[in-house]
Amino acid sequence: MADSFPNSKKVYDGGDLPVPHREVRLGGGEAPMRLYDTSGPAGYSYEDGLPHLRAPWIERRRASGDSNFSQLHWARKGEVTEEMRFVAIRENVDPEFVRSEVAAGRAIIPANIRHPELEPMIIGRNFLVKINANIGNSAVKSSVADEVEKLTWAVRWGADTAMDLSTGDRIHETREHILRNSPVPIGTVPIYQALEKVGGIAEDLSFEVFMETLEEQAEQGVDYFTIHAGVLLRYVPLTAERVTGIVSRGGSIMAKWCLAHHEENFLYSRFEEICELMARYDVSFSLGDGLRPGCIADANDAAQFAELDTLGELTLTAWEHGVQVMIEGPGHVPMNLIQENMDRQLAVCHGAPFYTLGPLTTDIAPGYDHITSSIGAAMIGSMGCAMLCYVTPKEHLGLPDREDVKAGVIAYKIAAHAADLAKGHPGAQARDDALSKARYEFRWEDQFNLSLDPETARDYHDATLPAEGAKQAHFCSMCGPKFCSMKITEDVRRYAAEKAIEPDEALSVGMAEKADQFRRVTRTGS
Amino acid sequence: MADSFPNSKKVYDGGDLPVPHREVRLGGGEAPMRLYDTSGPAGYSYEDGLPHLRAPWIERRRASGDSNFSQLHWARKGEVTEEMRFVAIRENVDPEFVRSEVAAGRAIIPANIRHPELEPMIIGRNFLVKINANIGNSAVKSSVADEVEKLTWAVRWGADTAMDLSTGDRIHETREHILRNSPVPIGTVPIYQALEKVGGIAEDLSFEVFMETLEEQAEQGVDYFTIHAGVLLRYVPLTAERVTGIVSRGGSIMAKWCLAHHEENFLYSRFEEICELMARYDVSFSLGDGLRPGCIADANDAAQFAELDTLGELTLTAWEHGVQVMIEGPGHVPMNLIQENMDRQLAVCHGAPFYTLGPLTTDIAPGYDHITSSIGAAMIGSMGCAMLCYVTPKEHLGLPDREDVKAGVIAYKIAAHAADLAKGHPGAQARDDALSKARYEFRWEDQFNLSLDPETARDYHDATLPAEGAKQAHFCSMCGPKFCSMKITEDVRRYAAEKAIEPDEALSVGMAEKADQFRRVTRTGS
Repeated sequence: MADSFPNSKKVYDGGDLPVPHREVRLGGGEAPMRLYDTSGPAGYSYEDGLPHLRAPWIERRRASGDSNFSQLHWARKGEVTEEMRFVAIRENVDPEFVRSEVAAGRAIIPANIRHPELEPMIIGRNFLVKINANIGNSAVKSSVADEVEKLTWAVRWGADTAMDLSTGDRIHETREHILRNSPVPIGTVPIYQALEKVGGIAEDLSFEVFMETLEEQAEQGVDYFTIHAGVLLRYVPLTAERVTGIVSRGGSIMAKWCLAHHEENFLYSRFEEICELMARYDVSFSLGDGLRPGCIADANDAAQFAELDTLGELTLTAWEHGVQVMIEGPGHVPMNLIQENMDRQLAVCHGAPFYTLGPLTTDIAPGYDHITSSIGAAMIGSMGCAMLCYVTPKEHLGLPDREDVKAGVIAYKIAAHAADLAKGHPGAQARDDALSKARYEFRWEDQFNLSLDPETARDYHDATLPAEGAKQAHFCSMCGPKFCSMKITEDVRRYAAEKAIEPDEALSVGMAEKADQFRRVTRTGS
Repeated sequence: MADSFPNSKKVYDGGDLPVPHREVRLGGGEAPMRLYDTSGPAGYSYEDGLPHLRAPWIERRRASGDSNFSQLHWARKGEVTEEMRFVAIRENVDPEFVRSEVAAGRAIIPANIRHPELEPMIIGRNFLVKINANIGNSAVKSSVADEVEKLTWAVRWGADTAMDLSTGDRIHETREHILRNSPVPIGTVPIYQALEKVGGIAEDLSFEVFMETLEEQAEQGVDYFTIHAGVLLRYVPLTAERVTGIVSRGGSIMAKWCLAHHEENFLYSRFEEICELMARYDVSFSLGDGLRPGCIADANDAAQFAELDTLGELTLTAWEHGVQVMIEGPGHVPMNLIQENMDRQLAVCHGAPFYTLGPLTTDIAPGYDHITSSIGAAMIGSMGCAMLCYVTPKEHLGLPDREDVKAGVIAYKIAAHAADLAKGHPGAQARDDALSKARYEFRWEDQFNLSLDPETARDYHDATLPAEGAKQAHFCSMCGPKFCSMKITEDVRRYAAEKAIEPDEALSVGMAEKADQFRRVTRTGS
């Protein structure tokens, strides 16, 4: 696996702000194409970590004496931060538009002031749809270096953020190495580490242990926290009749705690204290859906929607404290119930960005849940979901390895891009058109190089027609050299151009006149 | 690769009609689950072919002296054929319902009287969504035996029909072996062979060569023919401004012929003669979309919809001749334009079943077009498309090998099943629920065995936790042995059951009363 994509180089726009893009050189007289680039600066060692791009921006803001460092806070004050300008160039929109979307809570820029290595990005339904890759070791296997390698691998293929879901030993050390090497926002589920601190006994958790963990992780630079503050004691019995109960790890931890103590979830009852901490670092909330359905049968039930209402209430509280918020969503949802998820989230969460796991549209394909879920992800993305959490082929079965991470990221780049196209995002179609044009013109190398995975495309082509000459050939392996529909289309096009028939005419004139006309017409251009 | 699925056996329902199902034995006291089975009779050699299941049925009908052998013809006469009864048992519906759907043209049972090996199946939007797998050799590579092996492989994984798209030498012999070994309907695109007969020169095609080819293929037992009779001369110039022109091989052949001769497409002008031939064998029409878009930019354009109007007109003509019809659809369509395809097809094709290729929802992922297209396929399936033509990872790049065929079939089984769920098809959810329940109850073997690909599911599980004991363990590799959300849910469920909180109460009562209630409640059952 090469470090870089073929015929590509990293270019930086933005003057004082080094905003990365990948530029693909094309043949056939076509202008180079610039693509959104998540891969981060190259050439830095695992031990040293990435350069501190944001350090001077953060320093200047600290000097202001303000104690709230969130992008929401600055946006409301009318200030366009460097992060907002960076994002505006990345997304090719006006910086003021970025500021106004952040100020309204419709978008977030997850960017902990202790994560200076970050290349800022934005999550909101009026921007490109983003994807998240989950990494992290577990009690069962994997090392720190493996997890950093997975991160680098995931962002190479296009992950916009990554969540470190480590649960085993060396949880602090793993996270430290991930953050120091991450050009993308890192999210965590702090309750996992808090649980480790109390020996894995959910009942022994306390608000104090949780806050200590939050502070530790915020200090390290985590950009967003999944917090299951919507798992209320009174909602827990709503899950009793489900086929698969509570499947969220964080959700089940809090459910167990609530029941054991006969008390309300401390993440809910002391939510404002959590907000105060997060404002000091600009950690964003990813309000967790601890009661999300774990199978098709449980989709869109009372437990799920009760929790969603509470997440909407908490959104307003977080905003009062100037903290950025996104809302997590399911999970497992049949296609006919996906729209209701998006509609309700928009209705009850006041426009805060939605961030869903898939959803998987059927349960019958373990081993292929990157596919079952990319269907649901593409659909909910097209309806306005802002970020899609990937699912790998190993979901429900085991821990993803390198190839699984790649498969998950690619499936989700497809879903996110299909959603961008469906939403009519300006510029989303340019890459499709460039690739299609290359395909039509038999520019095989350009077709490969514009694809999400150039090497795989090339390998698949070469498996049938390995000769180098075949990549210049004006035919493909499906039809063979003797006959090719694309070749014939060239003839048709030449013919039509010579005859200069207008589309309207073509539809209205009859056959007799037509034959006549074919003989009469003269070249008129076009 | 084992010949059969683990813990599964083939069972036959239907008394005098041997309707196959696959029965999966389950643990945990669960009843066995019966699954739709496309794999065909086992244990027959490539040389001998499959047994002639339908021979006596066909013989009896031939004795009637009627010259139209189509299921549509019999359905209109009010007769429930063996094929209809077979299908009714397979789909768990009333035979009279099958007859009425076929009579109305809303469903077809592709079943050439010269294909007695066929296990009948039905294609229509009020039945299970079906999938087609394309096989066939080309001028470039692959042998006859390879193609038969691909067919057997495709139906093992669940292909409902297969199309033999061979274009190279030995086209007749390949088809013969495929038909004699196929338990599923076989479709072809006869113009490919007709073109071979005239040395690959489209201009040299004639109606006579085409009809001779049709007769030859009908005589062999082909169950449906793709015929591009809607590519009218006056529509061809509508494609001139497209990014990718005409991408259908059949469409471009006919377009070239029309332009070269300045004459109307003979498939259109002599359509009734074609109908007469097809009625004699009960070959169904798959009216080809020769002008389908070849990229996102060309979707839903004037050329595509003009042709669709003509396919609607031809549907009525075919029905007048008692010939069964389905309509082919695209192709490449962004998600936001998929509904329009389904709506227009229903509106202009008088309810004839729709059969689409994908559609691909983006062009940027060659190498992964089974995924780009399963998104579109699931969507259009949920909207009423009756059959989905698979796309393999090699689409646009090369010829599918064995692994590509499997990847394509599995992706499309997912799409079709997700669509069945979304449509609320009776019984579709039973498999999801059984698998989910097995997952929840840590019945790992049942989870594997109920999945679309048990071996892959098992392999993925074992990659993380290989020990045989781990498949009995009440934890999984994601969380490890110390903590597991599913384990906690069991505790929650037990707790909720003991407390017997009604869902409505759970939503309405406040916290103070709640704590009280938790202490007060007594076990009341439920």
